[in-house]
Amino acid sequence: MKKPTEIWHEIEGTITSPSGYRAGAVSAEIKAGSKKKDLAILYSETPASGAGLFTKNQVVAAPVVVSRKHLQQAQGHVRAIIVNSGNANACTGPTGLRDARQMTQFAAAALQMQTAETLVASTGTIGNTLPMIRIERAMPGLIQRLSGSHGEEFSDAILTTDTRRKVCVLRSARGKNPVTIAGTAKGSGMIHPQMATMLAFITTDAYLPPNLLHGSLKQAVAVSFNRITVDGDTSTNDSVFVMANGSNQNARISGVGAALDHFQEGLTRVCTSLARQIVRDGEGAKKLISITVSGSCSVLEAERMGRSIANSPLVKTAVAGADANWGRIICAAGYSGVSFDPDRVDIRLNGLLVCRGGRPASFDEKRASRLLKAADVQIDVLLHLGRSSATVWTCDLTEGYIKVNASYRS
Amino acid sequence: MKKPTEIWHEIEGTITSPSGYRAGAVSAEIKAGSKKKDLAILYSETPASGAGLFTKNQVVAAPVVVSRKHLQQAQGHVRAIIVNSGNANACTGPTGLRDARQMTQFAAAALQMQTAETLVASTGTIGNTLPMIRIERAMPGLIQRLSGSHGEEFSDAILTTDTRRKVCVLRSARGKNPVTIAGTAKGSGMIHPQMATMLAFITTDAYLPPNLLHGSLKQAVAVSFNRITVDGDTSTNDSVFVMANGSNQNARISGVGAALDHFQEGLTRVCTSLARQIVRDGEGAKKLISITVSGSCSVLEAERMGRSIANSPLVKTAVAGADANWGRIICAAGYSGVSFDPDRVDIRLNGLLVCRGGRPASFDEKRASRLLKAADVQIDVLLHLGRSSATVWTCDLTEGYIKVNASYRS
Repeated sequence: MKKPTEIWHEIEGTITSPSGYRAGAVSAEIKAGSKKKDLAILYSETPASGAGLFTKNQVVAAPVVVSRKHLQQAQGHVRAIIVNSGNANACTGPTGLRDARQMTQFAAAALQMQTAETLVASTGTIGNTLPMIRIERAMPGLIQRLSGSHGEEFSDAILTTDTRRKVCVLRSARGKNPVTIAGTAKGSGMIHPQMATMLAFITTDAYLPPNLLHGSLKQAVAVSFNRITVDGDTSTNDSVFVMANGSNQNARISGVGAALDHFQEGLTRVCTSLARQIVRDGEGAKKLISITVSGSCSVLEAERMGRSIANSPLVKTAVAGADANWGRIICAAGYSGVSFDPDRVDIRLNGLLVCRGGRPASFDEKRASRLLKAADVQIDVLLHLGRSSATVWTCDLTEGYIKVNASYRS
Repeated sequence: MKKPTEIWHEIEGTITSPSGYRAGAVSAEIKAGSKKKDLAILYSETPASGAGLFTKNQVVAAPVVVSRKHLQQAQGHVRAIIVNSGNANACTGPTGLRDARQMTQFAAAALQMQTAETLVASTGTIGNTLPMIRIERAMPGLIQRLSGSHGEEFSDAILTTDTRRKVCVLRSARGKNPVTIAGTAKGSGMIHPQMATMLAFITTDAYLPPNLLHGSLKQAVAVSFNRITVDGDTSTNDSVFVMANGSNQNARISGVGAALDHFQEGLTRVCTSLARQIVRDGEGAKKLISITVSGSCSVLEAERMGRSIANSPLVKTAVAGADANWGRIICAAGYSGVSFDPDRVDIRLNGLLVCRGGRPASFDEKRASRLLKAADVQIDVLLHLGRSSATVWTCDLTEGYIKVNASYRS
């Protein structure tokens, strides 16, 4: 892909900023007694292309099974996505499948759509069936909330242990009728390559046929959501959805070429922004760590080594403690399964050379520690073998992670 | 291997309990200013067979390189092992290699042995060269300390962030001149399958030729040290050593048969005991978690799934919080890469059935939580596919882990 000029710019907005989308959320008391908004819907006023990418965990939650099937049945035509937080509807057997299907039926009936045009996602605890009576009771209110100005409440309703809303909206400066791509996501534990208990929803008023949209999403996810990790756990519910409704008549993309490249750039940027927001808000996280492995023989190897470093609790706690313990970094590189020559490795922490040729560089420990106190930590590992590189994102590991997870269900 | 009758029993003792061994330790101020004993030696009065197994990390510390080479040069004949804590002598280049070699030369000269009969091990921080002048200065005192009754100080000197000494001594009730096998080890972060910053030393007064001893050690390590994990990190220095000096004339094992089976049972038990002691003393750990996957198609698959569960920070924090969150267990099984049918999985926590056929069993959450407050937590995952099983050990993940690791070097 040739690099298009920088014509996407970030704007204030929500998931309903692209034209032709509405959203809404209500509390259905998915967790009994909770008043938090936990049932949300995203809706396109006109038929749209849709694509989804899902967890690779063998244990797959019911909503993932249903959404996959609907995408297939409706051949990638999507009108709405209904989402709940507070309950993952995973490990719930035939009841869970029936419930997930019923959520789409409720929405389809209320909005006069085909059931297969309606997708579903859930996030929360595993092993409990959904309170379908409360969900059914909440439906009329949910449909009433649908509005082009309720994007924020959609973003809030999908959160679980997240501490902040995650949104990215890009607008293209290209042409007189600018295209918009918007995304929102939730983290924040169980974040890992191959996705996470991570839901992401992306809307655009551009149009691409479903197969092209799917390919474009796949490409964007490979270098964004699939390159983040909080704790190495991959959930049963991970899903990334994109809808393209073509409300913007000037942005109909029918095949490869400059227009698709342009759209791809925007979509990848939205996904990368959301992925980084998720990591920054990892459970207990105080820092965003970017790990760039370069001078590698292949992107795949660079990525693999980056993940190995990103998943090392020893590296993550060292960053939490602002300790320039590069020995843990080279050690994690060493067990990554990627071949390299330890005696040629250079390591930089926020620009400071701490290891040269596999051995300690002379550096000021105090300065290193000061650099590592920043909210953004960049770890550069240079292998001096080839020309490929990859960046992986993670967060530091703090006592807060333990606090959040030791009693998540109670 | 047929199951021999239970004739090994645990006794009070140290690494010098088998006859013909001496040990000693002194402070060499490996960490400047520290008065902790940090330089230790283990010595056999007579020539012994020796075997060692080492880290599979690509970044290999100098003492590992030197010990491997010496074992080869001396064809498995070993008289002594010199060990330091406080400095891993890893990522130290040619200087590090020269230093490790020099440690063996110091010991060999003082004890009139071949340098190749002397092995070396180091544990501690990565990337600093050893204070060889202080080590040399400490040597005469170290040799003077050598005694059959200084096994305990050897066990203490090898510790780093460990909170307790790790020892296991077994004696065989067989025959009138009972055989003894003794072991000692240090943990306690970076513990992972394929070993860890884990050093283990085993002595016996039985005799096996080096090749047989190597095979026996390999078999024992495969089901003990290679089945534990604290944090998924594999260190640059992991080493397990065994010496067999044949001081006990009645226990000369020359080939396969009942005598080797008997020895193998004892050696495996010593290794398993040390492995479990290491995990129980994992950084910040409060609980030993045993994960048994059974009904699997192969031992390898059972082990792989067990490791995936053992490495999940979400499972480990749930156990820390006494939360019967079995959803995280089945989720970790799901991303282990092992094929299974989620709808047939049963899960028990300390005997209590919490998941039957992939769905919630009805159980009393309070009772589950009470059971999980025990210091020993047994997780049973039953796949109902085949007849193979494997057990993997880990510890819970607590805020203490973060505390220990955020500022280990300072």
